[in-house]
Amino acid sequence: MMKIDVLSIFPEMFPGVLGHSILKKAAEKQAVSYNVVNFRDYADNRHQTVDDYPYGGGAGMVLKPQPIFDAVTDLVDKAESKKPRVILMCPQGESHTQKKAEELAREEHLIFICGHYEGYDERIREHIITDEISIGDYVLTGGELGAMVVIDSVVRLLPGVLGSEESHIQDSFSTGLLEHPHYTRPADFRGMKVPDILLSGNHKLIDEWRTKESLRRTYSRRPDLLDAAELSPEQRKWLEDIKKQQ
Amino acid sequence: MMKIDVLSIFPEMFPGVLGHSILKKAAEKQAVSYNVVNFRDYADNRHQTVDDYPYGGGAGMVLKPQPIFDAVTDLVDKAESKKPRVILMCPQGESHTQKKAEELAREEHLIFICGHYEGYDERIREHIITDEISIGDYVLTGGELGAMVVIDSVVRLLPGVLGSEESHIQDSFSTGLLEHPHYTRPADFRGMKVPDILLSGNHKLIDEWRTKESLRRTYSRRPDLLDAAELSPEQRKWLEDIKKQQ
Repeated sequence: MMKIDVLSIFPEMFPGVLGHSILKKAAEKQAVSYNVVNFRDYADNRHQTVDDYPYGGGAGMVLKPQPIFDAVTDLVDKAESKKPRVILMCPQGESHTQKKAEELAREEHLIFICGHYEGYDERIREHIITDEISIGDYVLTGGELGAMVVIDSVVRLLPGVLGSEESHIQDSFSTGLLEHPHYTRPADFRGMKVPDILLSGNHKLIDEWRTKESLRRTYSRRPDLLDAAELSPEQRKWLEDIKKQQ
Repeated sequence: MMKIDVLSIFPEMFPGVLGHSILKKAAEKQAVSYNVVNFRDYADNRHQTVDDYPYGGGAGMVLKPQPIFDAVTDLVDKAESKKPRVILMCPQGESHTQKKAEELAREEHLIFICGHYEGYDERIREHIITDEISIGDYVLTGGELGAMVVIDSVVRLLPGVLGSEESHIQDSFSTGLLEHPHYTRPADFRGMKVPDILLSGNHKLIDEWRTKESLRRTYSRRPDLLDAAELSPEQRKWLEDIKKQQ
């Protein structure tokens, strides 16, 4: 069973996300256990302060090393595995990817550290962190949402977590192309119709239409993905035709 | 006041995130109001079904058009602004950026549509959506976490939301460079020391050290950011020196 610890001064942000849908099911199936810890509880000063002014001046506060060092040490002591991945959520980190999620899904113990509009004392980075992850090039108030995003991307990959219904969806980043359009009933919704081919029952033509639409959408929206996609000679020809049409 | 509606079949995921920290303060200051709606409530069939099998066969389910069309129509009817941005959270969308967050922060009314391991009927995309956003190249179980991430990135930009403490932090994506290292007390933490220069009191040298460390970190971790960063001639020279040292 994977063990996931999260350090945050806003632990109340987590139960709604960890307690529903797939993340909840994964815990019920004992594929994972979650433990969200307020690292303020580890502060050894009278006022339970976790941040302080930066050396050298300047605005903004910096997370003190002591509470985080002691929290991580305690969590590692309590865990069976003594080799956790200790992940700092921060804008300076490597960009999160599906490949990174797959890598983390092979671990036994993940510890996430979430700052909240403070900087991190650099000694935290240098001495206890194994990974720094950013979920994207935008500014968020804290690391909490980033940790939830990484947790969701990892836990759904754990063995036995996804049922057949959920796992069959064609994930864009596993096929290497964006998905083709989907349609469901009714065939005519307030005058908006489903393409005839999908109602034809001809599965060879339907598969071909879907692949072409996938290629078309990927070419128009995310051409960067085409470089890495593995295409058959026939698919390459279709892609050339699509490029000429645009 | 900005109005944010969210359509999801897991509305319980949201209060923990919307009800704490900056997102909570923003609502208290009446900079924004949140309304999370279970679009199952809009389903006009007896079993309140919101998805169905895909036309043309294949695994996975597809969100039906009716509940989402009717929910969006109702939310627009109730709003003062009749021109909402209707945002579909999906892996095929444009990648979320700080620039996109700034753009959305100028709107009066945002409606987020969150699917949950289903595809979307294409007629939703074609007829009621103004934006499709992806928060990154990784697979998530639903659009809920993505919507929370976009909401956080947008709401913190609304006028009056950030206090002086929060706003002064140097955001990596506003300066164009990654942040320099931060340190706070104690100067010697269990043998790990703060660089002498930060204790020197010489602010000119401290500023120079910080800029060089920012350049060094950006060059080693995210050299792609350097192309867009605006550097002074002196900073360009420092960067050249850093490149030679590596």
